Amino acid sequence: MSADWDWLVVNVNIATMDEAGEIRDAALAVQGERIVWLGKKADLPALDPLLPVIDGAGGWLLPGFIDCHTHLVYGGSRAREFALRLEGASYQEIAQAGGGIMSTVRATREASEESLYHSARARLRALLDEGVTTVEIKSGYGLNLETEQKCLRIARLLGEQMPQRIQTTFLGAHALPAEFKDDPDGYIRVVCEQMLPAIAEEGLADAVDAFCEGVGFSKAQTRQVFEAAKAQGLPVKLHAEQLSNLGGSALAAGFKALSVDHLEYLDEAGVKAIKDSGTVAVLLPGAFYFLRETQLPPIDLLRQYQVPMAIATDINPGTSPLSSMLLMLNMSCTLFRLTPSEALKGATLNGAKALGLAEETGSIKVGKLADLALWDISEPAELCYQFGVRPLRQVWIGGREVSGIRR
Amino acid sequence: MSADWDWLVVNVNIATMDEAGEIRDAALAVQGERIVWLGKKADLPALDPLLPVIDGAGGWLLPGFIDCHTHLVYGGSRAREFALRLEGASYQEIAQAGGGIMSTVRATREASEESLYHSARARLRALLDEGVTTVEIKSGYGLNLETEQKCLRIARLLGEQMPQRIQTTFLGAHALPAEFKDDPDGYIRVVCEQMLPAIAEEGLADAVDAFCEGVGFSKAQTRQVFEAAKAQGLPVKLHAEQLSNLGGSALAAGFKALSVDHLEYLDEAGVKAIKDSGTVAVLLPGAFYFLRETQLPPIDLLRQYQVPMAIATDINPGTSPLSSMLLMLNMSCTLFRLTPSEALKGATLNGAKALGLAEETGSIKVGKLADLALWDISEPAELCYQFGVRPLRQVWIGGREVSGIRR
Ligand SMILES: [Zn+2]
Ligand SMILES: [Zn+2]
Repeated sequence: MSADWDWLVVNVNIATMDEAGEIRDAALAVQGERIVWLGKKADLPALDPLLPVIDGAGGWLLPGFIDCHTHLVYGGSRAREFALRLEGASYQEIAQAGGGIMSTVRATREASEESLYHSARARLRALLDEGVTTVEIKSGYGLNLETEQKCLRIARLLGEQMPQRIQTTFLGAHALPAEFKDDPDGYIRVVCEQMLPAIAEEGLADAVDAFCEGVGFSKAQTRQVFEAAKAQGLPVKLHAEQLSNLGGSALAAGFKALSVDHLEYLDEAGVKAIKDSGTVAVLLPGAFYFLRETQLPPIDLLRQYQVPMAIATDINPGTSPLSSMLLMLNMSCTLFRLTPSEALKGATLNGAKALGLAEETGSIKVGKLADLALWDISEPAELCYQFGVRPLRQVWIGGREVSGIRR
Repeated sequence: MSADWDWLVVNVNIATMDEAGEIRDAALAVQGERIVWLGKKADLPALDPLLPVIDGAGGWLLPGFIDCHTHLVYGGSRAREFALRLEGASYQEIAQAGGGIMSTVRATREASEESLYHSARARLRALLDEGVTTVEIKSGYGLNLETEQKCLRIARLLGEQMPQRIQTTFLGAHALPAEFKDDPDGYIRVVCEQMLPAIAEEGLADAVDAFCEGVGFSKAQTRQVFEAAKAQGLPVKLHAEQLSNLGGSALAAGFKALSVDHLEYLDEAGVKAIKDSGTVAVLLPGAFYFLRETQLPPIDLLRQYQVPMAIATDINPGTSPLSSMLLMLNMSCTLFRLTPSEALKGATLNGAKALGLAEETGSIKVGKLADLALWDISEPAELCYQFGVRPLRQVWIGGREVSGIRR
């Protein structure tokens, strides 16, 4: 049996994040890009004497983390705006200094592909150094076909150049560009009739997202985007119920959305709806923290209805310039009162579900991809509890060790 | 003039954190362990052709950060307790599972010097990778002479073995040990009459601290500790006004305390008192965050009276297991609404003041130690605004480059 294995890790504890739970004094074998055996070390079959064996030295093996919601390709920095706000500048002064999402749109449109690539790569690299092996990247700072394509192509290029798995999401309906200031319906038509078909045809998007909110797009407009996505055979997601309850989650559930994200204002009807559609609830504690929100997502209702909860960074320049999954683990426990088990499952298996990848990654299971992180910790909860010391020893993606991980 | 210089850095912008403000297109020269020249690059004198010149590539040179309040030498982990609490365990269940500060005292007493050294070293290393060049370390998890000495000796050893400057603080009056459960005055006598003199004689402490709080020690007991410190010629600091207003800050001001720390419940009388004594207000946003406090320190009053504000990590296993100064920069702006300038000064010059080291480090000035960090950023506020990507290029302590900094 072990004759076909490529390598084996022993002397580890495994937090499978799946039905098998935690396995102590464990071993795990990989063949090609997949996990082919796991269990108690004592139950290992006879080993080929030439099989490469890695000593886990008593550490914990977890699935690589999944960051299922980011906007990490963008131009410019909003540090100046951040400082101005804290110095008491008025809304007008900030607008004059070029603040707000439109400043990011402008900077993203103007940015060279090279500069966009390099700034995005640095954020992706920071995630890799925390054991994040799959990352979703949304467009949405272009708001015209050319720039949306530019950003999604960069996301695809990052997927080729960086070791991580990248899933892309087209978020044309993120904000209203200045060119359509008085014509949101006109912009949505462009999104649905021009941008989405072109992007789908080029294979640039794995999913389609929208921002359904008073300051974003209405339910009717969101529905149009979802219909257009459906016509292209693309799954949908939604920024919903972040600042108010518009019923976006129930709408998304009707389209069997992969996920609805933010959810601070989600009510019980919305929770029921996403339960029935198998939609994942993605919680974004970084934006909650950065915006100093006080309305918590309905965690108890989500628990009660057994809706899978994922957590993600929401990396973006306006509301969550925080490129750290480990910080999100801490914040989801500290601010949202998730248990460490919930947070860790939210950063692994449920993150994979939110991307439609749960058959392939997100947990440690025979047949799944060997996307793994080995941590020098005494129990998994330590990853949620302490922050700053980064006890990551090794990372594998599809069975291949990633070199140069910085602890 | 440049004949005596050891090295020069050019093509940098300098945030001096001192009267000179920001200097763009600057240069800085070091001789031995000190800064001997800084100014516009255009104003450089004729250079010795053999002078080593470092190209700053347009980055920003800041003083190394000062973390002026940590408890980073301790045994054990409280991850289990953290998980139990979030899983809804009762106070009694947590106590039975060995929770609370007394579990850290027990673990610290039992820990080998080697294990204490290595866990503390990992935290110090995480700070170094963020450009922190000076760190204060308090005792206070021994609560008997033997263990307090053990922890302070480890802090001293870290100061010899690690590149950072370490300042030690004796915090015997941190909590009441079980042996003195019904006799706090008896414990304070031991602190003042046995522990403090022995620790001072061995030269183990640079300052003395206490925890003045309903759940800590009274003002009268704190006064006794301060008198004993004074008798040994040691400066004092105080954990004050964190959970209630006992007037500890005013008491500390009467002893010309270097700093008073936490301060959520400080009132105007207290602010006036520390203004008059030249005491630094140390803000600890990590503990505020981790405990989900809502009472903010009186930032506006501190501004109004021009009290110097420092920020620090408060690294400790119970209320701030967060070994990251960069996170504290973000949290002090996001949660406490400091401006980036205030936060950066709080992490440099005012941190040095809180340790009595402002003549030597904490700002970039001719004559001061060359404790420097070179950052790949477009403006200093970026260090407060974004988190996760760590744009640190080089660190020098006392003019010597620290090798192996991990970005
Ligand atoms: Zn988002
Ligand atoms: Zn403290």
